[in-house]
Amino acid sequence: MSKICILLCLLIFTQIKASAQKIETETVTSLYREALTDRTAYDNLRQLCRNTSGRVTGSPQAARAVEFTFDLMKSMDLDSVYQQPVMVPRWERGKKEKAIIRSGKLGNTHLNIAALGLSVGTGKRGVSAQVVEVMNFNQLDSLGSEFIDGKIVFFNRPMDPVLFNTFASYGQAADQRMLGAASAAAYGAVGVIVRSLTTAQDDYPHTGVLRYAENSPKIPAVAVSTNSADLLSNRLKEDPGLVLQFRTSCQTFPDVVSANVIGEISGSVYPEEIITLGGHLDAWDLGEGAQDDGAGCIQAVEVLRLFKKLGIQPKRTVRAVMFMDEEIGQRGGKEYARQAEIRQEKHYFAIESDRGGLLPLEIGISTSPERFTKMAQLSPFFEPWGIYRIREGGGGSDITPLQKYGTPLASFIPDSQRYFDYHHSANDTFDKVNIRELQLGSAAMAALVYLIDQYDL
Amino acid sequence: MSKICILLCLLIFTQIKASAQKIETETVTSLYREALTDRTAYDNLRQLCRNTSGRVTGSPQAARAVEFTFDLMKSMDLDSVYQQPVMVPRWERGKKEKAIIRSGKLGNTHLNIAALGLSVGTGKRGVSAQVVEVMNFNQLDSLGSEFIDGKIVFFNRPMDPVLFNTFASYGQAADQRMLGAASAAAYGAVGVIVRSLTTAQDDYPHTGVLRYAENSPKIPAVAVSTNSADLLSNRLKEDPGLVLQFRTSCQTFPDVVSANVIGEISGSVYPEEIITLGGHLDAWDLGEGAQDDGAGCIQAVEVLRLFKKLGIQPKRTVRAVMFMDEEIGQRGGKEYARQAEIRQEKHYFAIESDRGGLLPLEIGISTSPERFTKMAQLSPFFEPWGIYRIREGGGGSDITPLQKYGTPLASFIPDSQRYFDYHHSANDTFDKVNIRELQLGSAAMAALVYLIDQYDL
Repeated sequence: MSKICILLCLLIFTQIKASAQKIETETVTSLYREALTDRTAYDNLRQLCRNTSGRVTGSPQAARAVEFTFDLMKSMDLDSVYQQPVMVPRWERGKKEKAIIRSGKLGNTHLNIAALGLSVGTGKRGVSAQVVEVMNFNQLDSLGSEFIDGKIVFFNRPMDPVLFNTFASYGQAADQRMLGAASAAAYGAVGVIVRSLTTAQDDYPHTGVLRYAENSPKIPAVAVSTNSADLLSNRLKEDPGLVLQFRTSCQTFPDVVSANVIGEISGSVYPEEIITLGGHLDAWDLGEGAQDDGAGCIQAVEVLRLFKKLGIQPKRTVRAVMFMDEEIGQRGGKEYARQAEIRQEKHYFAIESDRGGLLPLEIGISTSPERFTKMAQLSPFFEPWGIYRIREGGGGSDITPLQKYGTPLASFIPDSQRYFDYHHSANDTFDKVNIRELQLGSAAMAALVYLIDQYDL
Repeated sequence: MSKICILLCLLIFTQIKASAQKIETETVTSLYREALTDRTAYDNLRQLCRNTSGRVTGSPQAARAVEFTFDLMKSMDLDSVYQQPVMVPRWERGKKEKAIIRSGKLGNTHLNIAALGLSVGTGKRGVSAQVVEVMNFNQLDSLGSEFIDGKIVFFNRPMDPVLFNTFASYGQAADQRMLGAASAAAYGAVGVIVRSLTTAQDDYPHTGVLRYAENSPKIPAVAVSTNSADLLSNRLKEDPGLVLQFRTSCQTFPDVVSANVIGEISGSVYPEEIITLGGHLDAWDLGEGAQDDGAGCIQAVEVLRLFKKLGIQPKRTVRAVMFMDEEIGQRGGKEYARQAEIRQEKHYFAIESDRGGLLPLEIGISTSPERFTKMAQLSPFFEPWGIYRIREGGGGSDITPLQKYGTPLASFIPDSQRYFDYHHSANDTFDKVNIRELQLGSAAMAALVYLIDQYDL
């Protein structure tokens, strides 16, 4: 080939590349334009929040949420919409919990509490005992049975406010909620009260699941609001002999059948390759599950709507999945992966949105270094929309089970500063969702799915 | 000098530089740590909002805000705290405004309105006329006196939701509020009603200042909530002959004396060189002025507290300035620059925070290209705290008058997605401020001042 010919070929190739890039940039812009000028996702989220408030896994509200999202996607002219049955735990809070500090010296004071998910109830008479405050498990261990036996253990380590990433600080403090009851019971404690996992200073108790140990008794465990935790801690300094009484009537029932809800647009070239995108449909019973994780579900549905509306025909099958039971047993995510194996599905990519419908800031990706290097080159598409970092490390409870089949995983990572104001509390309501933040998130996920598919990444 | 000697010198220099860098990084971390674990700024903002709600320039509430911030800084053991007198406009809203659509065909309907700042009132009988809806000034001009004379002009162009930067979209739509009355009056209009400048779809009217023209009559002008604007627009489609009646009782009085409030820490090496940092103390009368711009003022005060608390002794004088009257006449900013000239003050740098106490995302700087290149090298200090862009172009109404003396100007640029939900409306209240976002902003500004001073930038 002559030099001129080579140069000509290079020139043509560069032009094709440049014009391809131009088409992709235009499509990304169109996705953002449509998302930012349409209220469908916001209205869908409002309906989900208002009509299925308190949709803890296995509840009638969760069943309504399955119906709602199923009907919603059925109305969207997708290629396939179905429910994937999953057996899920059934835990009920029962009556509103009560807690009171009794002190001869200081008088009586109420605390704001909520039972932790999967906790046993106290029975009608409640639990009543002196309180031992600890900041961590080392302190618990060094106190041992001598000081713990017969007491209520009060885990009071706050989330570290100095960490910029509040999920990191949540991760450092969540052991108290998750394992506090099991550890305290091993030393003979009769109950556990855990400082709410939140960066806010307020009156909302933030619930969440606990894990009992097989070899120690199941004792009742509750979350206490940060204001009440501080009050209890201060009272204990003044009267270490005070008695805390609390009553919960929560119960665990046999598993019930529920479902993952799935909608898809079939791929035009590689229909057998699946890009999965999702959030979890269940939510804690105290709130409306707006940020956690109604937003993630509705954004996944919105991605399909955006594709349909703009006439984008993906090469691969794009699937929106509303996973059931992320909060208690992660059964939906496990069942989804199990079914994928049974059906020999090829999962090309999976994206999870479970950090709220807040301002998109980053995309986290777990894949091979070579593939990551390619994906990081997508940055210029996202920077005009405020996403400056495509970083290594992504996933989420519901999609991680797919990793063993080699599926690359991505996390949609919005701003985390406000998230724990809402998380697992009665404060997680629709009015806390800003429409633009929700829209920008849907657009970012749609753009990511589109670019992965388009560039065969 | 031998080669070994040169190498040795280079090595020592590099080590000094590295260790200096280490000290600066540690100090920045300390600033963030202190800001993120202390509630003083948040509590100060609560007090400012609750005790001086409606502090429009020249009002008794604004006078209370001057006293409050003066007393606050007086209590902080600063080197100097003083008030700088400024003559400011005095405009009063008077009674709550009323607007009603009268239509024989469709019945009567109320609209949510608020007079624009500096608007004349309608008198007791109000303004009552048919309505001409326009989207822009070209349309107004092409309609001309023939269609405008005797009518109320309805400016209904929304802020463009597709722009990521909502300030850009505000900038594109604000001409309607600012110049709508002057332009419509020139064609004989009797009143003006302007769609609220907000990205939200709700019932809050968002006020803001207007400018009349010298050569056309001053006609009454009001803002209308976006929901009411859509309603009016829809009604007009069904009944173009409907009549809009609105009544306002706002008035402008003679100028009154007010003040900029200034607190400073004297420089230890170059006390005559001043780094000014500030926001504006006045706010629109409809809300508490929490995001606009109580946050900016309180963050400036917090920067001084952080310096004192950590024992940082700046080389240059650091000044927190609460500017008065940004919203109507920008008299505070002008007077501050005038006094700086009279006193031959050398303003080394000026930073304005007037975009809300929201998540810090960028720092914008207006200076020479060489100086900007140096400043952009500060990025690594800010990236761990979520600020990924130091970009060219900064300033703000209150500090721009300093530019003619060669002072480099910076804007503190937080996330803009939610800002216009609050801006100039009754929705701008303390509860809309997230403590962590406020704290991160104070820390970012403290770090910026510290680094500029430390590195002689």
